[in-house]
Amino acid sequence: MDTNSCAKLLLTHENILILTHKNPDGDTAGSAAALCSALRRGGRTAWLFPNREMGRKLLPYCGQYFAPADFRPRYVVSVDIADDRLFCQGYEGKADLCIDHHPSNTHFAAESYIRGEKASCAEIVLELIQSINADLTPEEATLLYIGLSTDTGCFQYGNTNAAAFEAAAELVRCGADVMTVNTVFFRKVTPARLRLESMIYNGLRFYRDGKIAVAVVTQEMLRQAGAKEDDLDDLAGLAGRCEGSVVNITVREKEDGSCRVSVRSTPEVDSSAICAVFGGGGHAMAAGCTVEGAPEHVSRLLAGVAEEVWK
Amino acid sequence: MDTNSCAKLLLTHENILILTHKNPDGDTAGSAAALCSALRRGGRTAWLFPNREMGRKLLPYCGQYFAPADFRPRYVVSVDIADDRLFCQGYEGKADLCIDHHPSNTHFAAESYIRGEKASCAEIVLELIQSINADLTPEEATLLYIGLSTDTGCFQYGNTNAAAFEAAAELVRCGADVMTVNTVFFRKVTPARLRLESMIYNGLRFYRDGKIAVAVVTQEMLRQAGAKEDDLDDLAGLAGRCEGSVVNITVREKEDGSCRVSVRSTPEVDSSAICAVFGGGGHAMAAGCTVEGAPEHVSRLLAGVAEEVWK
Repeated sequence: MDTNSCAKLLLTHENILILTHKNPDGDTAGSAAALCSALRRGGRTAWLFPNREMGRKLLPYCGQYFAPADFRPRYVVSVDIADDRLFCQGYEGKADLCIDHHPSNTHFAAESYIRGEKASCAEIVLELIQSINADLTPEEATLLYIGLSTDTGCFQYGNTNAAAFEAAAELVRCGADVMTVNTVFFRKVTPARLRLESMIYNGLRFYRDGKIAVAVVTQEMLRQAGAKEDDLDDLAGLAGRCEGSVVNITVREKEDGSCRVSVRSTPEVDSSAICAVFGGGGHAMAAGCTVEGAPEHVSRLLAGVAEEVWK
Repeated sequence: MDTNSCAKLLLTHENILILTHKNPDGDTAGSAAALCSALRRGGRTAWLFPNREMGRKLLPYCGQYFAPADFRPRYVVSVDIADDRLFCQGYEGKADLCIDHHPSNTHFAAESYIRGEKASCAEIVLELIQSINADLTPEEATLLYIGLSTDTGCFQYGNTNAAAFEAAAELVRCGADVMTVNTVFFRKVTPARLRLESMIYNGLRFYRDGKIAVAVVTQEMLRQAGAKEDDLDDLAGLAGRCEGSVVNITVREKEDGSCRVSVRSTPEVDSSAICAVFGGGGHAMAAGCTVEGAPEHVSRLLAGVAEEVWK
């Protein structure tokens, strides 16, 4: 399937429901909402599945496309979903078309349009909309910019390639409100988050001449900061801001007395080998595990294992 | 003058000295070094003025191009310099050619090639190098990516336009080491800086239901954090990370007992009007002033004036 045939396929159907994945991020939400808007402009009835997990930053952009309770879909399209276990309840096994950029996609839908080389699903939907309608509305451009910028960490992640920058240029030309998106998604955080960051930075522990950095997040810190679930995004990245740190460990105390541990590293050290010691796993540069015990104890334990694995 | 005529002009000269501005940033340094490399590939002898103010992040990229003591220039080119008062000592009034993107450029040189619509000088030099040599080396691409990314705040500032994203795409295609630049210039900071940020976030004061945020940086905090001059970049931006804040004030205690005040705001409030009360000035969204007194006192004073001006 190519872009034009995928666009034509979409336009042969009516009453289209578009699915986003569990714990929806900017790419699934922005891409789905932009596609929904473009299909409507192409004369189709289309709605988003009303994903209840959508957060307060995305809802103002996407909530208006949530399907009403009486909508009866006749064609189901998933956007940015690699595996139908990531579906919201009720649509497992029922997708007619899957549009995705994850190379690991499990081809769960009747038909699939996968572009594994793309940094974001938004770039695929950009091409689809250009095929459906020739142009984008400024609102669609903004929705796709949310997808592109969040999936590339505002063009700082390793997946940021020339095509991602070109897509950004095109979205700016189409009128994307880049400044507002940057402010909402990359600059502004709640006062509670700032208080929490303050405590985390203040409590950083260093081992092996600063090459191992450990951040600790306790229940008491969350309480003192007044932090909510929304304030806890990407905490695992904070320890890695330290110059000289190679292995970055984040220990987050859970309510049941165990700790959730995230390990990030440069290619020099195998994060998954560190987490495997505790029955966890992941990738060479990002892995995780759960360890019983108090945060202080778990921190020292992990730092010790990191030193051993590094040898 | 257009790109090709500027490129030809450069190639008609020999023993070229390239100037960067005082307190050099990534754009002046990266653009100048990339131009120097390209002129050498074009058969010319070219060096950078050995700017002693160049910081530890830029030096590894640019230091190799610093002119030896016995170099006698016959043609002087300034890069990213808006006014020859921003020259390093000794070359005021001696520039033969000025290459710049500041609309405010004072046309101090014998000839000027100004492109005020460009977000960075790096984009101008990109076009010049393509005119001189057709292609860029990966090293030149990396140098220009330093200029482009730092002058656009890694594509988050308001000057980021479609052309800036297109230039980024081209630099990636030419082999720019985007990941290393992003890590060095946007992600990593010293442990001292993290300690200082922790203290600043912890000490934030809010007025008018959180719409005025005040950050205080005292000499004692700098001492406790072990912060050096290099650690103090963009402190004025930290208070603005708070959701809901409209006016962001940073009060930095100086060694002489006065305070340097930076005010940032959305278009709703005039920062320069706040600073004008204390004899300072600037722009509507970014202004500054110096106020006598202890940081605590100055903070309350500024918050009060901000409330008055906002009425």
